[in-house]
Amino acid sequence: MDMMKCVVKEEKGEGHVVLTTRPVPEVGDFDVLIRVKAVAVCGTDVHIRHWDEYSQKRMNPPTIMGHEYAGEVAKVGKCVTSVKVGDIVNSDSHLVCGTCDLCLNGHSDVCYNTQVIGVMRDGAFAEYICIPETAVNKCDPSMPIEQLALMEPLGVAVHAAMEFPISTKKVAVIGCGPIGCMGVAVARTLGAAQIIAIELNEQRAQMALEMGADAIVNPVKEDTVARVKEISGGLGVDVVLDFSGNAGAIQTAIDYVKPDGYIVAAGLGPKPVELPWENFVTKGICLKGISGREIPRTWERMKGLFAAGLDISKVITHVLPLEEFEKGLELMEQGKCGKVVLKP
Amino acid sequence: MDMMKCVVKEEKGEGHVVLTTRPVPEVGDFDVLIRVKAVAVCGTDVHIRHWDEYSQKRMNPPTIMGHEYAGEVAKVGKCVTSVKVGDIVNSDSHLVCGTCDLCLNGHSDVCYNTQVIGVMRDGAFAEYICIPETAVNKCDPSMPIEQLALMEPLGVAVHAAMEFPISTKKVAVIGCGPIGCMGVAVARTLGAAQIIAIELNEQRAQMALEMGADAIVNPVKEDTVARVKEISGGLGVDVVLDFSGNAGAIQTAIDYVKPDGYIVAAGLGPKPVELPWENFVTKGICLKGISGREIPRTWERMKGLFAAGLDISKVITHVLPLEEFEKGLELMEQGKCGKVVLKP
Amino acid sequence: MDMMKCVVKEEKGEGHVVLTTRPVPEVGDFDVLIRVKAVAVCGTDVHIRHWDEYSQKRMNPPTIMGHEYAGEVAKVGKCVTSVKVGDIVNSDSHLVCGTCDLCLNGHSDVCYNTQVIGVMRDGAFAEYICIPETAVNKCDPSMPIEQLALMEPLGVAVHAAMEFPISTKKVAVIGCGPIGCMGVAVARTLGAAQIIAIELNEQRAQMALEMGADAIVNPVKEDTVARVKEISGGLGVDVVLDFSGNAGAIQTAIDYVKPDGYIVAAGLGPKPVELPWENFVTKGICLKGISGREIPRTWERMKGLFAAGLDISKVITHVLPLEEFEKGLELMEQGKCGKVVLKP
Amino acid sequence: MDMMKCVVKEEKGEGHVVLTTRPVPEVGDFDVLIRVKAVAVCGTDVHIRHWDEYSQKRMNPPTIMGHEYAGEVAKVGKCVTSVKVGDIVNSDSHLVCGTCDLCLNGHSDVCYNTQVIGVMRDGAFAEYICIPETAVNKCDPSMPIEQLALMEPLGVAVHAAMEFPISTKKVAVIGCGPIGCMGVAVARTLGAAQIIAIELNEQRAQMALEMGADAIVNPVKEDTVARVKEISGGLGVDVVLDFSGNAGAIQTAIDYVKPDGYIVAAGLGPKPVELPWENFVTKGICLKGISGREIPRTWERMKGLFAAGLDISKVITHVLPLEEFEKGLELMEQGKCGKVVLKP
Repeated sequence: MDMMKCVVKEEKGEGHVVLTTRPVPEVGDFDVLIRVKAVAVCGTDVHIRHWDEYSQKRMNPPTIMGHEYAGEVAKVGKCVTSVKVGDIVNSDSHLVCGTCDLCLNGHSDVCYNTQVIGVMRDGAFAEYICIPETAVNKCDPSMPIEQLALMEPLGVAVHAAMEFPISTKKVAVIGCGPIGCMGVAVARTLGAAQIIAIELNEQRAQMALEMGADAIVNPVKEDTVARVKEISGGLGVDVVLDFSGNAGAIQTAIDYVKPDGYIVAAGLGPKPVELPWENFVTKGICLKGISGREIPRTWERMKGLFAAGLDISKVITHVLPLEEFEKGLELMEQGKCGKVVLKP
Repeated sequence: MDMMKCVVKEEKGEGHVVLTTRPVPEVGDFDVLIRVKAVAVCGTDVHIRHWDEYSQKRMNPPTIMGHEYAGEVAKVGKCVTSVKVGDIVNSDSHLVCGTCDLCLNGHSDVCYNTQVIGVMRDGAFAEYICIPETAVNKCDPSMPIEQLALMEPLGVAVHAAMEFPISTKKVAVIGCGPIGCMGVAVARTLGAAQIIAIELNEQRAQMALEMGADAIVNPVKEDTVARVKEISGGLGVDVVLDFSGNAGAIQTAIDYVKPDGYIVAAGLGPKPVELPWENFVTKGICLKGISGREIPRTWERMKGLFAAGLDISKVITHVLPLEEFEKGLELMEQGKCGKVVLKP
Repeated sequence: MDMMKCVVKEEKGEGHVVLTTRPVPEVGDFDVLIRVKAVAVCGTDVHIRHWDEYSQKRMNPPTIMGHEYAGEVAKVGKCVTSVKVGDIVNSDSHLVCGTCDLCLNGHSDVCYNTQVIGVMRDGAFAEYICIPETAVNKCDPSMPIEQLALMEPLGVAVHAAMEFPISTKKVAVIGCGPIGCMGVAVARTLGAAQIIAIELNEQRAQMALEMGADAIVNPVKEDTVARVKEISGGLGVDVVLDFSGNAGAIQTAIDYVKPDGYIVAAGLGPKPVELPWENFVTKGICLKGISGREIPRTWERMKGLFAAGLDISKVITHVLPLEEFEKGLELMEQGKCGKVVLKP
Repeated sequence: MDMMKCVVKEEKGEGHVVLTTRPVPEVGDFDVLIRVKAVAVCGTDVHIRHWDEYSQKRMNPPTIMGHEYAGEVAKVGKCVTSVKVGDIVNSDSHLVCGTCDLCLNGHSDVCYNTQVIGVMRDGAFAEYICIPETAVNKCDPSMPIEQLALMEPLGVAVHAAMEFPISTKKVAVIGCGPIGCMGVAVARTLGAAQIIAIELNEQRAQMALEMGADAIVNPVKEDTVARVKEISGGLGVDVVLDFSGNAGAIQTAIDYVKPDGYIVAAGLGPKPVELPWENFVTKGICLKGISGREIPRTWERMKGLFAAGLDISKVITHVLPLEEFEKGLELMEQGKCGKVVLKP
């Protein structure tokens, strides 16, 4: 039996994340074995290390971690027809059922039976990962593999930014971590009229400018409502993309979004958000939660965006060997990075 | 100068609503004078009598009240071309500017410069009302005039029900006062798969059944989430139309609406609504505030709905002469009625 | 090996359609074996008997015919999870790949790799049919099985009628054979403001009235454009649903559809259609071809329509045992029927 | 009475286009008088000179020509509130009624009562033009006035390009005159994945490349279907924007557009277009005529596109004094130019 190196959450509780070896997965008739060439560290991986509530609810260790990846097809099951050995591929982290009421109605992003790679089944902090053919996404092999590994988090930004029309519209982006910065770049590529980034961390604000924001507002040092209205010409913005999940930031957005405007909620926060109901209703605001990516639509859109010139290379600040996964987790935890990509 | 009888809020403060006479309005070149034939009492009229916060912010008495009406064209200004004397007409209560950023972008429902008839300018608790030609809506003269007077509140139900697709979908309607009951009838006419009315008042619940609801849930006596899921086959509903503005009812809806489902908020309530953020975001819910009607789109849709067979006659429980406006206001305040229509 | 009776196109050329026996299909790990309880005769089956160009291009006999069916699950492969023995099911006649560029972008109705049941692989004029789990549609067992067998042709009507908004709109339906009549019923259920059926065959016109049309126009005896405009109040209709494929009828529709109106083309005809370009462009008309059904969306919509009260029972004029398939083909060829349902 | 210089079509028939003087128009209470600062020559102006069928149907000389313009507000009527003297403005060439069935339903682009500036009423080949306030569009005064004068033809490109989603999609643009080239630039700004320009004139093809096309196909020298499929990766394009009105080019597009693809028809041609019906229907193609601009939506979108970076300066090849209008007409007739702008 062939063995591979991998990073495993070995048991419940704080820590217990180790580099070890496991057998290379067996490949069923409808499965594809992928040799992982790049895998990014996600905030969720930090949470898994600390065994937070999210992990406790979903995880049953031991489990190989890692869910933002790209690689090369190493082997295919005998019924697989859509990819072949050598193809460059990646996949969503969410494996959906395709047969529930939600999948049948085009809502696979919230499929009742979602299996999350690297959380509910073995992931990609490993030399190999095995997934069903239906989940495999074929990539342009001329793209840098590190960027292909980022299509999962990029997909959140694309799902949020393309939920409502933003071409020719004024847009505010709250929270400019890696996903928010990618949201800025996506809005730019789609022809937003104006992009205002709202971010208190100066390094992140700087990255947002580099990725295409027209202006930055510091929500701690400035009167956000007044500044956004001023920058946008007096009336506020048409669309707000929130990647912060911050209750106060969202409440503020209700004041600077235009009537009949959109607030797209793509960030999770620990606290409930209290909506001033009369203002919310009479302004005609539309508030939409965003979960993961629409499969396969978001993935097809990402391919189109890359072809249209979208460049997300700037969010990758570190590339490390898989063996240095701990350093990657540390960097993420300290927020002193964009994305960290590991190479098995 | 010709005089007309009318009901006027004469000065600020509690009460001061009297039947009196005023000059028939003068008709400008672009104006239409309408002989009011039916005018309905709205909850807002009760609020004006009591001089609540809404009235205090918007009203500068003396003002003729009344904003849900229909009548016959009595005179037209010399530049008016689209209607003629004798036409049966009504109008929205909101006179919009047509030139602000919102009107130019198709959002006249939230026009920055809205003038509300019967609140910010003289209304239709009167023998005559005068409005600009651009605001006039021409009606089918074969329709009962009492129903034509209800197109303003019906428009709220139509705006809410047609904001997202409900044909072939499962729908819950929260709050079955007159507008909620009309919402039930609209959903039925549009081919909703199932309509669950959520209402604690048994008389109103009964009216919802008569207007087309498939089932009733009493939110006080029953476990609303469990019942809605049971009635809808286990998974909940696709769309929730809220006409209650009740914070608890809306929070409950987040639990029984399907993932990626819609909650349409068309009811005002005094309290803020606290959203459980992680649940809201990860379920991918879309929450949309509804203000008034889209002009002219909602009005064109109402005409189509009447042609398609929509019947709202059951919500009219009382027809009184204008002189009995006080009785009308009392009935509304006590909630012992559907709609009360006054005839000047 | 168990044998079953079935109707087979045995070889190329005119005729060669015989009742015979074949082995019951083997059931693969991901397959579902269905005991056929009702199967309808389609115009395509008549074409196959006569070996027309359509058949010559797609068929490689011997092939069991029949593609509009419903039945009961008799056996499931070991990997099947979404249905169980005893469930009432049916399926689209088009088995799609799910992995081509079109399927990935939500256009499975025109999937490049479509396999048509009863044409390109064995069909349902048989006691049993075996299809992949992913193609199976679970039905409400309380529905009459004959109507469930009609969901394939009904799906064409639903795909056409729901391509653009028809609720509250004026609609013309050209060609009132079974699919056109079902289109009328669907438009009625969805709240169309007015439905004008255009049909020269008086029996079919009568059926259209029974299924919900407001008015009939005979395109041979009447001036269609003048009549449609008169019936619709002077301006014509918002949406035209064509199930005829008749070049002249479509050209006429360009004259009675409103500017910016829709013509939905769901009927195949032998001749090209010449569009008067300046008129077509300056009127802003939208002309959309309809192929088959959107899988699974159209099927989910049909379930919702049945729940909303759609009744298609009137289009079923004959129910025969499978052994009388020739009589069924004759009835279809002569057009002296609605739908003919066979029971194996 | 103040006089102004202007270019007038003085009587019916070939020619009769002269530079002359006329009284400056009187300004009604709801009117705006604009000092024209730039006005572009349109192909229609060439047709008017030659008194073609289009002119014969619509024009009743004497009429001041010119309908693509921008200028400065010189005087406002006493009821005008939305603009003031000194504002930089332009307008659509189509003055719509706002009250017909089409305007009420959001289809003012095909308003039954359209009055065309420079054709059916006096135009902008003049020092001054007077239009109703409702038609005036306020511009960003920092934009070059020549580009503001081009918003009318640009609006056709924007209306066509934004009719269906093109962000992240593969697009073919047929006919790269000034409007086609602007269509290319708009598609680029909106994030199209790939833009293939189809144009036989090499100078125009070159301009298309400069405005953002990825590739050029010469429909005379190359096999268009094969080339478009090759360039687009084998499957063809998602959307075709036709600005040629050429029957053969449109028929070819049916072969290289993907199934369920869009063909947007924004060019007028003299000949009918014969559609291969079975292919059109079974491919599920959507063919949409485009007339003028959506008012005010297209104008709001253009402002957003300019803010997003759209640059159309390259299509302006000549700027001449109004007195040289004949040279402008000659250049347009010979096709040896992009757009010619006259300055009164």
